[in-house]
Amino acid sequence: KVLWTLLVSILGCASSLPVGDDSICTAEELAKYSIIFTGKWSQTAFPKQYPLYRPPAQWSSLLGVTHSPDYSMWKKNEYASNGVRDFAEKGEAWVLMKEIEEAGEKIQSVHGIFSAPAISSGTGQTSTELEVHPRHPLVSFVVRIVPSPDWFVGIDSLNLCEGDHWVEEVSVDLFPYDAGTDSGFTFSSPNFATIPQDTVTEITCSSPSHPANSFYYPKLKILPPIAQVTMVKLKKSQLGLPAPFLNGQAKSNEIIDTVS
Amino acid sequence: KVLWTLLVSILGCASSLPVGDDSICTAEELAKYSIIFTGKWSQTAFPKQYPLYRPPAQWSSLLGVTHSPDYSMWKKNEYASNGVRDFAEKGEAWVLMKEIEEAGEKIQSVHGIFSAPAISSGTGQTSTELEVHPRHPLVSFVVRIVPSPDWFVGIDSLNLCEGDHWVEEVSVDLFPYDAGTDSGFTFSSPNFATIPQDTVTEITCSSPSHPANSFYYPKLKILPPIAQVTMVKLKKSQLGLPAPFLNGQAKSNEIIDTVS
Repeated sequence: KVLWTLLVSILGCASSLPVGDDSICTAEELAKYSIIFTGKWSQTAFPKQYPLYRPPAQWSSLLGVTHSPDYSMWKKNEYASNGVRDFAEKGEAWVLMKEIEEAGEKIQSVHGIFSAPAISSGTGQTSTELEVHPRHPLVSFVVRIVPSPDWFVGIDSLNLCEGDHWVEEVSVDLFPYDAGTDSGFTFSSPNFATIPQDTVTEITCSSPSHPANSFYYPKLKILPPIAQVTMVKLKKSQLGLPAPFLNGQAKSNEIIDTVS
Repeated sequence: KVLWTLLVSILGCASSLPVGDDSICTAEELAKYSIIFTGKWSQTAFPKQYPLYRPPAQWSSLLGVTHSPDYSMWKKNEYASNGVRDFAEKGEAWVLMKEIEEAGEKIQSVHGIFSAPAISSGTGQTSTELEVHPRHPLVSFVVRIVPSPDWFVGIDSLNLCEGDHWVEEVSVDLFPYDAGTDSGFTFSSPNFATIPQDTVTEITCSSPSHPANSFYYPKLKILPPIAQVTMVKLKKSQLGLPAPFLNGQAKSNEIIDTVS
């Protein structure tokens, strides 16, 4: 009887998953990952208006969350939350952290928050750990592009569970997004609020289609990735320290699997 | 026989603790804490040369570690490591993260690394979680003062274990330190390496004793705290989210216990 109730409640939960979601995650209880973020914002790759001074090109702290399909930190073509706006415009994390916590309290859609230190140049690495759970197998995060009006890179709801096991390693190339809250066109544009607020859009080499835009490269087909993130499953014995540190520099160029 | 060997090994370990260390920690296996950092660097409290532009007064990411007495992240009157120098001068965390990891690998003196997002103004809050272990009951962290030559605030080896239990809550007022690697005198001084490197020193209202120094307030007896940190033990059921978020703003002014 109890087991049956449990089954019903699991199925009830599963039926509320978004259409297209793979399946129920039946992987073991918890998994820890090392997450390594690599900035690839060099002057060579992105020569146009590359910020050299006050401030030079750099990356904010990384703020992330592990969660269920019921939570969304940010989503392309949807409006950014106040927390994402504050983070994308100013790198201010407090409101976003509170939004995440409230989602965790109200609908138990959040497993944990994680963050990694800022990177003081356009190219460089930072790292931290995250923990996922079968009911919270998704990873989302944001890193602000500094300087910029409201531009960021990130991941939206990457699933680390594949049926009955956790993904061993995954790398994703990252491209710039506009949070839709500031109408600045270039890295160093002064603040200029977008009213009414626009949705989150990907910035490409041709969109926004205006020569003044910092990422407008009409001769390119696609922008080179401006950053990359790699998540590596940690062994039980590695709890407490990220795996990539064990052998010096993270092997961030070995792309095992790419999700767009 | 096995038990005896274990005892000897525990005692052997204990005998290598620094003189003056309280006692062996016999608290339960693991404890999680929420750590809340509050910036108190306002123009009212610190009017002299208060940085308003490019960049305005703000705080870097917080980078911390839980460890045994065999590890030291930084210490007053000792030389800063290369990692602490990079972090204090530029907010660059990578070298410091690798130093911590190496200490964890070689002498198993580290339990875990933690970090919290930067704060984009002089006053504001950031938060994360940390985990301590009876063999790794000490907490150290650094936060860079931005802008500054090589100034930071932090905690060096705060013990969260009191004999057979973990401290419930602790708040510490924080004051500025000079990493001893850059001879700049004011928040916005250009880079000017200190050769040979000096030791880490506390900056007070009278030291360095020079009117040009940004913290030189000859009429004060002591500087007001420029920041504060509060650590609150989390209940088992709170794993995954910091306690202070549960009731809105952290009650950072309720100082339960102060360690200097």
